[in-house]
Amino acid sequence: MEQGLLEQRLNFLFEIDKLKSVLRQTKLYDDSRFENSAEHSWHLALAVMTFHDKSNVPVDLTKCLKMALVHDLVEIYTGDTFLYHEGHDDNAEEAKAAEKIFSIIDDLPLMLELKTLWFEFEARQTPEAKFVKALDRFLPLTQNWKTHGTSWKKHGIRYSQVVEKNAYIQDGSELLWQQALKIFEECRVAGNLLE
Amino acid sequence: MEQGLLEQRLNFLFEIDKLKSVLRQTKLYDDSRFENSAEHSWHLALAVMTFHDKSNVPVDLTKCLKMALVHDLVEIYTGDTFLYHEGHDDNAEEAKAAEKIFSIIDDLPLMLELKTLWFEFEARQTPEAKFVKALDRFLPLTQNWKTHGTSWKKHGIRYSQVVEKNAYIQDGSELLWQQALKIFEECRVAGNLLE
Repeated sequence: MEQGLLEQRLNFLFEIDKLKSVLRQTKLYDDSRFENSAEHSWHLALAVMTFHDKSNVPVDLTKCLKMALVHDLVEIYTGDTFLYHEGHDDNAEEAKAAEKIFSIIDDLPLMLELKTLWFEFEARQTPEAKFVKALDRFLPLTQNWKTHGTSWKKHGIRYSQVVEKNAYIQDGSELLWQQALKIFEECRVAGNLLE
Repeated sequence: MEQGLLEQRLNFLFEIDKLKSVLRQTKLYDDSRFENSAEHSWHLALAVMTFHDKSNVPVDLTKCLKMALVHDLVEIYTGDTFLYHEGHDDNAEEAKAAEKIFSIIDDLPLMLELKTLWFEFEARQTPEAKFVKALDRFLPLTQNWKTHGTSWKKHGIRYSQVVEKNAYIQDGSELLWQQALKIFEECRVAGNLLE
């Protein structure tokens, strides 16, 4: 392999390492610290395996795993945006970041596939995108549940907001959505989610 | 889905979250802090995708990804052991840990598959196990390279030791092994690896 092409691949590994320093609003289940987007991506991939048979419609597991692993790479350039903040759904900057990160390596067809999967995930139209997005929403609410509403309380989030912002979990997995509703209700009753 | 079975799956997600708190001997490329085993597992899965076409023999990418994602789960119970320490290859305790973590969920055939893959990875006989193991060794040496030999200097590791302990990278990818040798030489010359 030509040295320049090998260096591109190594540079990709160096560049994506920065995702380990992008902090999210959610905390580990043990409440010890905030989670970063790299370990979250790993957790999401594991969650995909754990619930892959509970998607509303059958999904291609490999495709879901690839999506989960790269879904947050754009945050290296854009940072993490909180679900309940203005501009969360502004995708222009993220699309630009996707073009950048997936273009580091010139000679690997899989990189183009991963870029396509990133856009498919964002568009949320296919069974795999709906399912992985559902889990990407489901995990943070379980983290809030286990840490007594850490990020919800910090930002003064209300019950109606979490229901609205997380409703598309239902598009990916009815089972996870029913569990989410139970969790919201429990958090509301416990006072960890405002009325 | 029966509530008890759903709770098993949620408990699995809670349990594996502990891998985010298992620290390794290696540091992030920017030298800011030690890496944890969850984010390392994510990085390894991305490295698998980045170099999957550079395995000595063709590998099943999906199998490699699953291996990478679960290869360190046992550390939740055993902790991370440093490659150059005595007892690194003592697998009895790890095998017991694998039985434990992959038995949390009763009704998911994929869990049995993941457990089998974990043992396959450890045995290092199949093309996928050899390739993922090669990358699992390759990443830490690039981290030492980029952080001026952090863990090598801390533990007084010698050139001959890194060559010996990492030699089986060659079984997975001749390309990565040649790159590893270049890195060792560069680190030796720079004084970040003892003679």
